Amino acid sequence: MITRADVDAATRRIAGLVRRTPVAQVEADLFSPEGSAPPGELWLKLEHLQHTGSFKTRGATNRILAAAESGELSKEAGVVAASGGNAGLAVAHVAKRLGIPAEVHVPEHAPPVKVAKLRALGAAVRQGGSQYAEAYDSAVKRAADTGALFCHAYDQPEICAGQGSVGLELAEQIPNLDTVLVAVGGGGLMAGVATALAGQARVTAVEPETIPTLRAALDAGRPVDIEVSGIAADSLGARRIGEIAYQVAVREDVGSVLVSDEAIIRARRLLWQRCRIAVEHGTAAALAALIAGAYLPAEGQRAAVLLCGANTDPSDLAG
Amino acid sequence: MITRADVDAATRRIAGLVRRTPVAQVEADLFSPEGSAPPGELWLKLEHLQHTGSFKTRGATNRILAAAESGELSKEAGVVAASGGNAGLAVAHVAKRLGIPAEVHVPEHAPPVKVAKLRALGAAVRQGGSQYAEAYDSAVKRAADTGALFCHAYDQPEICAGQGSVGLELAEQIPNLDTVLVAVGGGGLMAGVATALAGQARVTAVEPETIPTLRAALDAGRPVDIEVSGIAADSLGARRIGEIAYQVAVREDVGSVLVSDEAIIRARRLLWQRCRIAVEHGTAAALAALIAGAYLPAEGQRAAVLLCGANTDPSDLAG
Repeated sequence: MITRADVDAATRRIAGLVRRTPVAQVEADLFSPEGSAPPGELWLKLEHLQHTGSFKTRGATNRILAAAESGELSKEAGVVAASGGNAGLAVAHVAKRLGIPAEVHVPEHAPPVKVAKLRALGAAVRQGGSQYAEAYDSAVKRAADTGALFCHAYDQPEICAGQGSVGLELAEQIPNLDTVLVAVGGGGLMAGVATALAGQARVTAVEPETIPTLRAALDAGRPVDIEVSGIAADSLGARRIGEIAYQVAVREDVGSVLVSDEAIIRARRLLWQRCRIAVEHGTAAALAALIAGAYLPAEGQRAAVLLCGANTDPSDLAG
Repeated sequence: MITRADVDAATRRIAGLVRRTPVAQVEADLFSPEGSAPPGELWLKLEHLQHTGSFKTRGATNRILAAAESGELSKEAGVVAASGGNAGLAVAHVAKRLGIPAEVHVPEHAPPVKVAKLRALGAAVRQGGSQYAEAYDSAVKRAADTGALFCHAYDQPEICAGQGSVGLELAEQIPNLDTVLVAVGGGGLMAGVATALAGQARVTAVEPETIPTLRAALDAGRPVDIEVSGIAADSLGARRIGEIAYQVAVREDVGSVLVSDEAIIRARRLLWQRCRIAVEHGTAAALAALIAGAYLPAEGQRAAVLLCGANTDPSDLAG
């Protein structure tokens, strides 16, 4: 579990190493379905402008700096992570910036373009196994063998607390915010933001119908494994929600709304057409909840959509 | 010529019909060439998030609303413009929003995708002639024949004053700004921003080497025709600087720095890679001045780059 004090500490710790990302107010009805009531105000939090193109840099920075403070980090052994996506990029970026070695474990058939990006950030890439779970196991084992600091993609307190810094920033930028729509995979971002905004604004988790990790956990009364598929699997494709995220969701009464792949694809395209913002499919899920009417804002509500990542091939946005 | 009072009036007039676009502070040295001194602070003004993807909506809104106030606008005859690019889109958008007809004249061989966009905004598109100059002449004649309001792409006081509203917004957002880099084609944006920021911050015009409209005018002592070519010609491809822009540039001592097409292409790509912002080549020119070292910031200077348009095919940003 994490507390507001953890998020406050994380925010102080990582200041100067992460970007303060801007918010943009757009027309309240810009993404509301015809005939449905729009929110009172609609804001976009442009966190996709963060270093490495996603919020993951916040958590990774906090995890590594906290470990350096506590003495847990060996600068020689460095850090190790398991991720072919945003979490891996973030860990590689932070390690490079701090001048420590990073090793990122990915499945054997990870896309060459992702491996190349990790290498460009100076990380050693270890490929092996056919599943993400095997990369995860080998990263954990490697950390135990070498003394490197293991950085989880979402289920560590320092990771979640670091992601929460974007929530505090949002509250500063929009003091009277009522609600924030946040895409959920492993749930680290939701956990941090819901903790940061507790008592101030409500967080609604948005999940693809094909990867309902939080919904499944809420239904089962505990995190459970689910099948992963669909257009947003590259960024939201965790097999189960993190323990911390699940506990925070229960504590803060975070609801889950589901969106179809079709709505996600449409949301990503409309965001480009109407605002010239290109994001990844997982991020577009949060906006899809508005567009598809899966989330219905209350009258006069001040709503924000957290745009959390843009590691996407924008080719299909042309025209 | 335009004055600060014109910009103030425009800003009040168009409030609510244009978006207040955010600014993002990035690392001061993010776009400085190796070995050169970075500015003290570096800000990006995200005006490419404006309606229709460019600042042109500001000027068009002001032009049309000012004419409605003065009685110059006939709501039946509507508005007419000559532009296959951002100015045409802006006029079509504003007319649609205000419920008046718009006619946009373009050359016979204007790209079908641009014609389709204008039509999607409800504009009647008139194609004819092989050159932009012919579309311009036919639009002016049409306005005279029908009583429609002619909206120039850059050289009308209300157009320039409207663009200036982005300068006032910038000064509010960054109170101690020292300098703004602005891309120049016809110069409407530069004229507005330099007037808005007079006495507060310096404006530097950035022009492609292949389209130096302001430089040529400053050298000749008056606006003169030049040859137009290069990667940014679709948005900065005016054949000569506007009269108003030239006069403001002289009054406010706006300097011109030139950038190569190569630097423009590189700047556009780096902006995507480092900030996940996709802009058109003409807009990237402003950033290219920093990247190529064509503009050298003074020590401690607070600099902003105005990102003014994103009507671009982002396909080539993949990877």
